[in-house]
Amino acid sequence: MEKWVLAIDVGGTFTKLGLVNAKGDILGAKVYDTGAKLPYKDFLSKLGIELRQLLSTHGKGIDVVAAGVGAPNANMHTGQMEDPPNFNWGTRVPLAKSIEDMCNLPTTIANDANAAALGEMTFGMARGMKNFVVLTLGTGLGSGIIINGELLTGENGMAGEIGHVNVDPHGRKCNCGLTGCLENYASVTGLKRTVFELISEMREESTLKQISFDDLTGVMIADAAHNGDPIALKAFQLTGEVLGSKMADTAAHLDPEAFILTGGLGKAGDLLLKPTIASMEKNLFIAYRGSIKVNISTAPSSHAILGPAALAFHYHVDHS
Amino acid sequence: MEKWVLAIDVGGTFTKLGLVNAKGDILGAKVYDTGAKLPYKDFLSKLGIELRQLLSTHGKGIDVVAAGVGAPNANMHTGQMEDPPNFNWGTRVPLAKSIEDMCNLPTTIANDANAAALGEMTFGMARGMKNFVVLTLGTGLGSGIIINGELLTGENGMAGEIGHVNVDPHGRKCNCGLTGCLENYASVTGLKRTVFELISEMREESTLKQISFDDLTGVMIADAAHNGDPIALKAFQLTGEVLGSKMADTAAHLDPEAFILTGGLGKAGDLLLKPTIASMEKNLFIAYRGSIKVNISTAPSSHAILGPAALAFHYHVDHS
Repeated sequence: MEKWVLAIDVGGTFTKLGLVNAKGDILGAKVYDTGAKLPYKDFLSKLGIELRQLLSTHGKGIDVVAAGVGAPNANMHTGQMEDPPNFNWGTRVPLAKSIEDMCNLPTTIANDANAAALGEMTFGMARGMKNFVVLTLGTGLGSGIIINGELLTGENGMAGEIGHVNVDPHGRKCNCGLTGCLENYASVTGLKRTVFELISEMREESTLKQISFDDLTGVMIADAAHNGDPIALKAFQLTGEVLGSKMADTAAHLDPEAFILTGGLGKAGDLLLKPTIASMEKNLFIAYRGSIKVNISTAPSSHAILGPAALAFHYHVDHS
Repeated sequence: MEKWVLAIDVGGTFTKLGLVNAKGDILGAKVYDTGAKLPYKDFLSKLGIELRQLLSTHGKGIDVVAAGVGAPNANMHTGQMEDPPNFNWGTRVPLAKSIEDMCNLPTTIANDANAAALGEMTFGMARGMKNFVVLTLGTGLGSGIIINGELLTGENGMAGEIGHVNVDPHGRKCNCGLTGCLENYASVTGLKRTVFELISEMREESTLKQISFDDLTGVMIADAAHNGDPIALKAFQLTGEVLGSKMADTAAHLDPEAFILTGGLGKAGDLLLKPTIASMEKNLFIAYRGSIKVNISTAPSSHAILGPAALAFHYHVDHS
């Protein structure tokens, strides 16, 4: 009998869930407000209602065997969300246990980027790959590292924080308390900061000068770049240079087959990809030059539950 | 019957070999000139003579089951030394096959730092550890990464080139052709370069001003530092700052339990260790702070064959 898994993506704003089979078919996809600022028990009550509805509508006659959950700061080793920013659920949120108790399915949790990496390997453009790195370039920069076909979790479940490698010890302040972390340069927020730095430095006219920092979006910057805006073009150039140089450092650790870029910044396509690849190649140790693929994920963001689904398949179906 | 392995460390200057058992006991240890500038076939003839002598003297009545070889630029996936610098043996040296043919034992090769990492796990201070990084701080900076108890080799057998992550895009020229690679700062050679930079900048008296670059050694710098020499002290401080900040970046990839420092620079002890740890902690992402051990290897350098021995045990005894 075909196996299905319950897949849940807990975001700071929306929670997405659905049932997924090994082909990536989705049943009963649903999106609702997470309620990250409300108590954790409210989240669980609402999740319980949604799950009963999902399973009663779509779960009859199919074999649901496991659950996979992606969530901010989720630690696979402990099953907890640890100090999740922007959530009022406490410092150690026992998410895996709560969901396991609720639906009586073996449950694995991981942070969004780690789940995305497994998702790319199971359902996406990394099918057949064994060694690669997914970088999620959104508000911040998340990363998931696959080594020999397995997710790298590290000694304490916290591997893959490439967003916090250092770009410049005297550079931009990071929300994490450090200075100069990569995610302040190579993310949608980083791109916005670069635009504002360039506005402060350059004399060229730019439509971006009419927009406040809070109103500015990555799409606006990409649109301006496509229209030849000099500040937008230079911002993408600099973003790619920083990102590519740090991908070269990552390669010097891991010798990966590929990098896969995903998240909002990835939508900029060649605007981001070309300077990133050029900078990576320029900074690569000679043994790696010309051998590492850099791709932008083709998965639509509506498929956010495929990462969590891959977690469930990987740890509870494929390995069982 | 107790199992022994043949262990060979091929260095640019000396080749070391011997027989090793699972406890790390060594029989028939021998050191002789490698002849890196002579043809490869000369190396093989000499190795053949040495091996026959070793096995006829010490190999009788014991069970020698495999061979492990450490060598510069040795690639475990291909069994070849690839573009080894300072060797006149060609660009692709079939070392694993040559030795396998010669001694009729299953043979695994790896670069020195990778072998050292397995050596620390099998015989040294990483016994019981599953996730750690060995940094060999000698003429250059080599690295070996252990993930879940296995050596990280990467997609093409070239993982673990941490000596070539970037410290400063406008910094020191590296032998590899890049600019600002870590090994030009955190190695014996890097320390010497830092001393010369400081002599150019500082006004303080220093005994190191009496010594040419070619004559200067790491031990001289350490001795000067122990005598309170301001340039030597500052050179160690800066070396530790650079090394520690890059170890924080490595931690952001791997979430390791420990770093183990070995090689000539490690002999400086606390002169190196204190600023390194302080800098690493200052630059660590919050999730890792206070959790990562940094140790200097206690293995004497005369035990260079224990790394190759660990290779043989790991791939041909433990896993068989």
